[in-house]
Amino acid sequence: MSKGQLDLLLVNDVASQYYITAYDGWSFYTPQVVIVPMDGEPIWIGRSVDAVGGRLTAWMKPENVVGFPEDHVQTAARHPMDWIGKFITDKGWGKARIGVELEAYYYSPKAHMRLVASLPNATFVDADLLVSWARVVKSPAEIRHMRKGATLVESAMRKAYEVIEPGVRECDAVAAIQAIQCAGSPDFAGDFTALPPIIMAGENAAAPHLMWSDRKYTQGETISLELAAAYRHYTAALARTMQLGSKPKKVADVEAAVLEGMNAVLEAIAPGVAAQDVEAAWRNIIRRHGFKKESRIGYSIGIGYPPDWGEHTISLRHGDMTVLQAGNTLHAIMGMWMDGWGIEVSETILVTESGCETLAKLPREIHHKR
Amino acid sequence: MSKGQLDLLLVNDVASQYYITAYDGWSFYTPQVVIVPMDGEPIWIGRSVDAVGGRLTAWMKPENVVGFPEDHVQTAARHPMDWIGKFITDKGWGKARIGVELEAYYYSPKAHMRLVASLPNATFVDADLLVSWARVVKSPAEIRHMRKGATLVESAMRKAYEVIEPGVRECDAVAAIQAIQCAGSPDFAGDFTALPPIIMAGENAAAPHLMWSDRKYTQGETISLELAAAYRHYTAALARTMQLGSKPKKVADVEAAVLEGMNAVLEAIAPGVAAQDVEAAWRNIIRRHGFKKESRIGYSIGIGYPPDWGEHTISLRHGDMTVLQAGNTLHAIMGMWMDGWGIEVSETILVTESGCETLAKLPREIHHKR
Repeated sequence: MSKGQLDLLLVNDVASQYYITAYDGWSFYTPQVVIVPMDGEPIWIGRSVDAVGGRLTAWMKPENVVGFPEDHVQTAARHPMDWIGKFITDKGWGKARIGVELEAYYYSPKAHMRLVASLPNATFVDADLLVSWARVVKSPAEIRHMRKGATLVESAMRKAYEVIEPGVRECDAVAAIQAIQCAGSPDFAGDFTALPPIIMAGENAAAPHLMWSDRKYTQGETISLELAAAYRHYTAALARTMQLGSKPKKVADVEAAVLEGMNAVLEAIAPGVAAQDVEAAWRNIIRRHGFKKESRIGYSIGIGYPPDWGEHTISLRHGDMTVLQAGNTLHAIMGMWMDGWGIEVSETILVTESGCETLAKLPREIHHKR
Repeated sequence: MSKGQLDLLLVNDVASQYYITAYDGWSFYTPQVVIVPMDGEPIWIGRSVDAVGGRLTAWMKPENVVGFPEDHVQTAARHPMDWIGKFITDKGWGKARIGVELEAYYYSPKAHMRLVASLPNATFVDADLLVSWARVVKSPAEIRHMRKGATLVESAMRKAYEVIEPGVRECDAVAAIQAIQCAGSPDFAGDFTALPPIIMAGENAAAPHLMWSDRKYTQGETISLELAAAYRHYTAALARTMQLGSKPKKVADVEAAVLEGMNAVLEAIAPGVAAQDVEAAWRNIIRRHGFKKESRIGYSIGIGYPPDWGEHTISLRHGDMTVLQAGNTLHAIMGMWMDGWGIEVSETILVTESGCETLAKLPREIHHKR
């Protein structure tokens, strides 16, 4: 904020709002902002009925949890950002230099236009990802949360291995997996995940983000599973692949490349290494195996709210020169989608002082169910 | 589109994209649009890896399911809307009059700015809710889908009644409820719901949108449950209240008011009635009981994607003059949040030729577990 000479930061990203205030509710379907001034407490503003939950979860003084009136909810007549603009003016910030996250989920073009119109004397600056970049190095407490998420996602994956077999409906498998994600462990609850379980199988095996149906798994399928689990929204993701029945040679070939590639990635990740060099280590391996992959192979992960658990900061891809630091947490995902089938293997990786560590500890080989 | 003299409509609302194209994937964490020209098929544009799923789920010809390049995903260097702007120009629509939904979830101010910058000769018009208003009257096929959702939400609520009791953790109850929502019935699968199960209990009983924890329910609690279930994204929502142990008189008093109010709402709803008159029928009843409620009491419901199953069109509140029609589906929710506790009762209601009908059939009284 100092570097950008900002008087005020308007945080629209829900994960960053949680990071700053601890406010935690499913209320972001109406406009919701956190105002961060240079001095003093942040101020949460959301729907009036949700200020009750704001006072229960956020750490600020009650007067800094503010509800806009209910007659501003989803109506053409009045926009919450008009009210928020007036609130900012009344606070004496009408001529402020204000940073706004212009690409946060749930912040709409109309919301921004109404805010700008309601503050004619303010100056607006794009502060997209300012807080997100502050989130890339996790504190010891955050890492403990992510480790709890990792134990849950390991349990969820083991449950998937157990329930998925020929004749079982996809929806019944997902129900069993979600139950683990949510119930958590005997010691702590799990949270909702930013994406539902993604299981690629059957004719959808090459389509990375389709959902389940009542189709039944059949013998011979190669099934990719991309799961996550969250403890207090701190998310650990984990992808693995299952094979029902005999494993085709082409699957074994891609598996060998992917496992070797993942090992190269884990050897490459260390403080001081550029993000793009991690991807290069992977690319060298799979090129030698005769494959290529165009999409990035990973990204910074942490607090997750729908629709994404990625932090939109570090990407493991060519051109990303970000230098990794101890405390970064990365979801490295090797997804190879071939013609009508695919393999996925991923790890949520903590960058340590000396190298890195996977948060979950589950064999990476294809889980073979004969 | 004709009335607005639009050459082109850019649909950003995910539910409306599904309504128009049948495309169904969890890919809206990167920009995704459906272009509707005055003539010819709509065109879906999303992330390149998701075009595979687009061709599997959308009904259009394969050439009308288009992926933007992977190197445009979540990077400061290239924005998907730059690419989409160029695509529109290449199609000959560079000077078109283009309607855009300026308040769709997942459409950001930056995305809109980049689109506008990439189409300097086009004219942009706010087409917010244009498709959503076309969705307010459901077809017989859509109503069948919603009835399936309603059978699932009834099962989910019965499961909640069964599992919630003193000593049970909130997260374990939610896990059991979600499993029903997802697994569906023996005949069909359930889908993810636009909001997770919302259960207001304990110290959070007056906060409408907080999530579960590992807290245990205790004797004496009044617990509000707002659940939904979806069949192919068509959502039926249902709220009920449970009482563990003896029911305090104040709870019984509010219950009586709410049940009478819901009866008044169901008597009021019919084709030709204005939305605000439905709310007035409710308000008259609860005023007589000595209560008041500031927020609206319902809204149009249908296709649901996170973060909301409401359609943002019809609201049951003072000032909404929309005249109800047969085929409207409304979620009427009587939530009375008192000082530290609350009661909720809701129905998903189909407006019929002669009046209305609740899609779920479950007694509305507080479920009393002694």
